[in-house]
Amino acid sequence: MSKEIPIKIYLDESSLPKAWYNLRADMKNKPAPLLDPKTGKVADFEMLRQVFCDELARQEINETDRFIEIPQEVRDFYRMYRPSPLVHAVFLEKALGTPAKIFYKFEGNNTSGSHKLNSAIAQIYYAKKQGLKGVTTETGAGQWGSAVAMACAFFHLDAHVYMVKCSYEQKPFRREVMRTYGAEVTPSPSQTTEAGRRILAEHPGTGGSLGCAISEAVETALKTPDTRYVLGSVLSQVLLHQTIIGLETQAALEKYEIKPDIIIGCAGGGSNLGGLIAPFAGEMLQGKADYRLIAVEPASCPSLTRGKFAYDYCDTGKICPLQKMYTLGAGFIPSPNHSGGLRYHGMSSILSQLYHDKLMEAVAVGQKEVFDAAVLFARTEGTLPAPESSHAICQAIREALRCKETGEAKTIVFGLTGTGYFDMAAYHKYNDGEMTDFVPTDADLEKSFADLPVIP
Amino acid sequence: MSKEIPIKIYLDESSLPKAWYNLRADMKNKPAPLLDPKTGKVADFEMLRQVFCDELARQEINETDRFIEIPQEVRDFYRMYRPSPLVHAVFLEKALGTPAKIFYKFEGNNTSGSHKLNSAIAQIYYAKKQGLKGVTTETGAGQWGSAVAMACAFFHLDAHVYMVKCSYEQKPFRREVMRTYGAEVTPSPSQTTEAGRRILAEHPGTGGSLGCAISEAVETALKTPDTRYVLGSVLSQVLLHQTIIGLETQAALEKYEIKPDIIIGCAGGGSNLGGLIAPFAGEMLQGKADYRLIAVEPASCPSLTRGKFAYDYCDTGKICPLQKMYTLGAGFIPSPNHSGGLRYHGMSSILSQLYHDKLMEAVAVGQKEVFDAAVLFARTEGTLPAPESSHAICQAIREALRCKETGEAKTIVFGLTGTGYFDMAAYHKYNDGEMTDFVPTDADLEKSFADLPVIP
Repeated sequence: MSKEIPIKIYLDESSLPKAWYNLRADMKNKPAPLLDPKTGKVADFEMLRQVFCDELARQEINETDRFIEIPQEVRDFYRMYRPSPLVHAVFLEKALGTPAKIFYKFEGNNTSGSHKLNSAIAQIYYAKKQGLKGVTTETGAGQWGSAVAMACAFFHLDAHVYMVKCSYEQKPFRREVMRTYGAEVTPSPSQTTEAGRRILAEHPGTGGSLGCAISEAVETALKTPDTRYVLGSVLSQVLLHQTIIGLETQAALEKYEIKPDIIIGCAGGGSNLGGLIAPFAGEMLQGKADYRLIAVEPASCPSLTRGKFAYDYCDTGKICPLQKMYTLGAGFIPSPNHSGGLRYHGMSSILSQLYHDKLMEAVAVGQKEVFDAAVLFARTEGTLPAPESSHAICQAIREALRCKETGEAKTIVFGLTGTGYFDMAAYHKYNDGEMTDFVPTDADLEKSFADLPVIP
Repeated sequence: MSKEIPIKIYLDESSLPKAWYNLRADMKNKPAPLLDPKTGKVADFEMLRQVFCDELARQEINETDRFIEIPQEVRDFYRMYRPSPLVHAVFLEKALGTPAKIFYKFEGNNTSGSHKLNSAIAQIYYAKKQGLKGVTTETGAGQWGSAVAMACAFFHLDAHVYMVKCSYEQKPFRREVMRTYGAEVTPSPSQTTEAGRRILAEHPGTGGSLGCAISEAVETALKTPDTRYVLGSVLSQVLLHQTIIGLETQAALEKYEIKPDIIIGCAGGGSNLGGLIAPFAGEMLQGKADYRLIAVEPASCPSLTRGKFAYDYCDTGKICPLQKMYTLGAGFIPSPNHSGGLRYHGMSSILSQLYHDKLMEAVAVGQKEVFDAAVLFARTEGTLPAPESSHAICQAIREALRCKETGEAKTIVFGLTGTGYFDMAAYHKYNDGEMTDFVPTDADLEKSFADLPVIP
């Protein structure tokens, strides 16, 4: 750390990466392939292109090209909000009294409020290039739906978003953001799809789930001409696009000769974490460096720390390909009193493999500790963080306090994936002392594990 | 424009201005002094320091020092979110098909969601330095209250915010942001002050007004030990702090040898507009350059374009000093169907004087056109703008389209003061086609002008 480090490290626009990094090319143990849920056969390009646009289907199964060029139009869009800053958390360090150095990569400075836009704009660009008319997708907390709506507005494509019904009702402002960008927003489950009607018949009055909204969006894409489905996490193509986060982080650290010891990200489906750690995991796989990579998940939805590493359905309707991953079972639904996002039952196959191979650690944290960390962060560093991101903050604080005990001046980097401006209902609960922790019992998990598919 | 201009011009942190610019030092016709409402005498330092902390009282009446140093602690805080970017609106230009060059100074990348933090942190720093325990203030839309809460959390001072009651009820999430930063938030009018009780007795069930909330906050500051009042706009001290916007804009333009023709800002009390244009007005006053400076106000609250230039009360309770300004009368309350902020009846005395001296133009725009502009901006430039800021966008688009007609390639700079993430109720109205325009009649204005004070 020879040069004086500014609080916010901004790379020049000319330093914006020109290619995404495909970590799979460097993995000795590749993630297991997607399987057709009906036949159990490997899902190939021909199968995947029914659901995804061609270029994305190719990226989904590409395990060989180490770098994939970022199209110029996507780079032009990135320039509106990227490179994002790597921030030195000097005020948080001071508040903690730690010798540790803490940096965070801040992805919240765009209207989608998170890193989701990085992949949305790429996916919509490829859809546009293929001459499609529109896309369908699902959204839970709303960041992904907002990102898709923004990207579709930019490239003049139709966006049809299935929004988990309880979010649709509890987050009318997120819905309005999507509508302002011209998207059609339907609460899920709905009567517009077979999957939705089936779930409504089985569970009248249900508030919906991400797995159910995925089924509806995929079904609608399949039956609408010139339309494909887009997904904001879990898939390898999404992690590929999100490596822009890690590549910029790596470049910013190198610019100031900062050597990280610990890299931390929150983990739902794995999009931000996978993007952030990819280049660093790549260095480890190439034997060039060693880092502690830490996935932080909510104790209420602990797919890595308490899940099974097995093939599972990605959606409730069981129409998407099967994926081998750490999973709680496709029927697992986290308690509604869990406020943050990160509610998905499974985990990216890339991250699942890294975790299985012990290249990455995982830890589960309770939501009260997460919100304690969020509020401390807001008051010291200014930015009000998203509950999801606050899982990473929480672990960064734990590590920094450990350094305080041991006197070690470790360098900690974490991903601040987004802002919490549309999550004030959760903060309200916390401010009123009404936030509780929820941890599923072993019996709960055994029940949802029972539905894991048997591979034909 | 010789060098290649990036989309986002970021200055280095080392280029952060070291002093605010006091435009009054260069004004030939100084703004008229504040007057004691009881005696009609000029409000001097001794009077002002009853309400404001000492250093701010000094700044309020300082007409001679051209530059006032920014304290190191304030600069350190600024470094968390400043210098803010000057953005080249290439996608908006393309959508309009204009030969004009459009740039905007973006002040929304902080949790207060606007430029208000620039003055809040300065005011709270001086309060802390004076050994005070806390401050009181009022907030309407909530940006200023959020900024004060953030600044008080940072310097560990108590913040008591009187929030206009209808906003308190309609914007619970803004309220929750303030609470998350530790502020006490009271809906105004309240039973906690004489001013509040009087207004509640006269108008039971009223939704409150900014003028009323100011009275309550000032009264509470006066009767609470070691407490002073802070205000987010109108005052000359606030415009002074906000010159950081204009100084950075000037430096960014100079860095790329860009010469602006037109500089546009939205105008409520005048804080962002005054801060943005100050260095440019200074160049004009010194005969160094010539610009068109344009204030944009809502047609529903047109203080510059339809107000009187006269001494008036700053608050409903008539306890604050009298100020000579363009005013609609302290009793004027804009229609509740006006969704944006910019609802204050008066205007900064500095801007009032510049307008009176024809150094600045003013224009009033209707809210439907403002939201049309906001949505076009969101869809092309990505960022969802605050309704207030969208007044400036609206006028920038008008000027750019005029260039399209004439073929002139003028350079337009406007202030994008903030984001609209807490204004989705207004966007909802617009998306549902339920937004209407409101323009007060001459009879409405004559009625509120009738209450202008007679100077003793």
